Amino acid sequence: MADWQEITGGVTAPKGYRAAGIAAGLKPSGAPDLALIWSDVEAIAAGVFTTSVVRAACVDYCRQRLEEKASARAILCNAGQANAATGEQGLADTLESADLLARELSISPNSVLIASTGVIGQRIKMDALRTGIPAVVAASSPEGNDAAAKAICTTDLVPKTIALETTFEGRPVRIGGICKGSGMIHPNMATLLAFVTCDATVSSHLWHDMLKRAADRSFNQITVDGDTSTNDTLIALANGQSRTPAITEMGPEAEKLEAGLTAVCQHLAKAIARDGEGATCLIEVQVTGAPDDAAARRVAKTIVGSSLVKSAVFGRDPNWGRIAAAAGRAGVSFDQDNLRIQLGEFLLMENGQPLPFDRPAASAYLKQAAAGAYLKEDTVLMQVQIGNGPGTGTAWGCDLSYDYVKINAEYTT
Amino acid sequence: MADWQEITGGVTAPKGYRAAGIAAGLKPSGAPDLALIWSDVEAIAAGVFTTSVVRAACVDYCRQRLEEKASARAILCNAGQANAATGEQGLADTLESADLLARELSISPNSVLIASTGVIGQRIKMDALRTGIPAVVAASSPEGNDAAAKAICTTDLVPKTIALETTFEGRPVRIGGICKGSGMIHPNMATLLAFVTCDATVSSHLWHDMLKRAADRSFNQITVDGDTSTNDTLIALANGQSRTPAITEMGPEAEKLEAGLTAVCQHLAKAIARDGEGATCLIEVQVTGAPDDAAARRVAKTIVGSSLVKSAVFGRDPNWGRIAAAAGRAGVSFDQDNLRIQLGEFLLMENGQPLPFDRPAASAYLKQAAAGAYLKEDTVLMQVQIGNGPGTGTAWGCDLSYDYVKINAEYTT
Repeated sequence: MADWQEITGGVTAPKGYRAAGIAAGLKPSGAPDLALIWSDVEAIAAGVFTTSVVRAACVDYCRQRLEEKASARAILCNAGQANAATGEQGLADTLESADLLARELSISPNSVLIASTGVIGQRIKMDALRTGIPAVVAASSPEGNDAAAKAICTTDLVPKTIALETTFEGRPVRIGGICKGSGMIHPNMATLLAFVTCDATVSSHLWHDMLKRAADRSFNQITVDGDTSTNDTLIALANGQSRTPAITEMGPEAEKLEAGLTAVCQHLAKAIARDGEGATCLIEVQVTGAPDDAAARRVAKTIVGSSLVKSAVFGRDPNWGRIAAAAGRAGVSFDQDNLRIQLGEFLLMENGQPLPFDRPAASAYLKQAAAGAYLKEDTVLMQVQIGNGPGTGTAWGCDLSYDYVKINAEYTT
Repeated sequence: MADWQEITGGVTAPKGYRAAGIAAGLKPSGAPDLALIWSDVEAIAAGVFTTSVVRAACVDYCRQRLEEKASARAILCNAGQANAATGEQGLADTLESADLLARELSISPNSVLIASTGVIGQRIKMDALRTGIPAVVAASSPEGNDAAAKAICTTDLVPKTIALETTFEGRPVRIGGICKGSGMIHPNMATLLAFVTCDATVSSHLWHDMLKRAADRSFNQITVDGDTSTNDTLIALANGQSRTPAITEMGPEAEKLEAGLTAVCQHLAKAIARDGEGATCLIEVQVTGAPDDAAARRVAKTIVGSSLVKSAVFGRDPNWGRIAAAAGRAGVSFDQDNLRIQLGEFLLMENGQPLPFDRPAASAYLKQAAAGAYLKEDTVLMQVQIGNGPGTGTAWGCDLSYDYVKINAEYTT
């Protein structure tokens, strides 16, 4: 990350991208609900999608498009109706959306990717979308990032955006991203959507592999409530408009690019965890000493996803026993006599044995971190060593509060 | 189950067992905290234990004992200190406990099994245990079930016990059980303990296999909060005192015995789910149409463990989308166009499409089931069909309430 500097502009920070977000009348509230990101030229495109077998029509559509052709010009995202559990009509609506946008942009329909978020079981309001598509194209500009970031939100408390810049052989290269997701305040609006743009020149197989690895170290390492949505989508475009040398194989340039891509994805993923339903703080769990990175990530995610650990953090209770118990059930083999647990600066357990520690001070640490709440960078940090292996991994989550239950229990009836 | 009748007496209903529960001074509260179950003769013994790599000393001890010899005379259970994360001293305490009980009963130490539940990281109060062991032996009797069921509890709201009876060739055969577990009201007291007695004559390999399968269809199918404890233990004894013919291979008799064992385990497992922290109702999820039973059980457990499904039930919200989404992420492949979801009598989804239904009536169904609360048999029933395969499976859980968060957040500090 030392190579990359944070800049403004989100997905329109990289060269050759425009974006927009408008209120097209899809959401009953009248809030912005239609977003567009598009590249001046065909961009290398890679995607990572929900693994659920219950999927939205747009997920199947994007997966098929990207299998046929690893490039795209535009991403259209509608918020309000998830277009999941909508059968053949849902797929027809997705295809029509792509056709309409392609016509408006004078590009091929197979260069259009579609994402939806909102209520499961509801079709997209096609009348509103048909009039919205020309409007969102007309509104799109190189300054459109913030409007797009806002229009993809459903129940998110804040829009989430980031951009980073570095240089390759003296020329600037930029990566930008926006995302949404916070759980399910309205029923079933669990979608995690993330869109990343980049102006580097990179081969498609390399870009795809980088995105897969970056997702494993970011979005796949966050959990708010353990529920995977029907619409989860991460798409990354790379359009070569930085005019920097093409990156076609692993090496220092590719590693640098991947580091930036991973940093963008991690920033966005942490923003989602921080905005988790009812959350009062971000929790980061760092695991070391595992047999390999995948094992470390698995332990980290199990700890950060434990309802008991999450409740303890909400209660500002430095409860090492719950951390140890969650580590033990993660499905990764280790010798419990090697377990070491640190909370902030407080060493709670070493060699598998609980240590005496300043409990009021540790509780105060949790209180202070939580006071940072959403916007500050304060985070509850848990460091867990499970052995002496080389594997490391990090996961992010949030605490479990009364508000989580309230938000999810008090809905329709 | 038609073959088996419910009777009273719990673990002392089968012939040749005595039990006791006393207050030995292990719990600070002075509540009963030491339980003993023992058989007049050496009994075939099988055990199923936590899969966590962070384990209590007594779990390692029992596992090793049962590997060496598939029989036992006595089970001693102390409540108050879990004797987990206590290192070599913890194992020494377990060994001393077994030796003391063996001396008192004039049996071999390797016929004693030990279980502990309570706070992780705390050693057993050995002084109290040393004086408690002769006292619990003296108190033991064929009427001691209820006292034992009470003494193994930590934060359970009610003791949990069951006994069933049938006949083999005209002679009565009985199976009894007690268990404890409700989550972690005090920190880390998450233990699930279950002890089953039987007076049938059965070979040890058969008894072991039956118990494994029964556990997979009962205790392994419940979830309160997804956290697995360091001390989970299920032990089943069969002492042959019914004087019925030995069952040594699968066949009608073995199937009948296994049906009874499974019914006892399911009754106890459901009692734990119903007593889940903060729970207002029991949820039962039945899955059909899976490729095999294991896949069906996996889908059922994923649904019943979903925080979003649990919150919806607490909110009396007939939210089919959350059930569908949880089924989809269970890791079992199916065609979403075959998905069928029924809540009580209400068909919510068929062929993967949401159906119109009487939402207020469905919500009223949830309200009425929940009103049954702990003691009545009212249950929220979800029936989910994922295809046309032969696999079926059931899982049990409870709703997620404000009280769950309250109980787990507001502890020490």
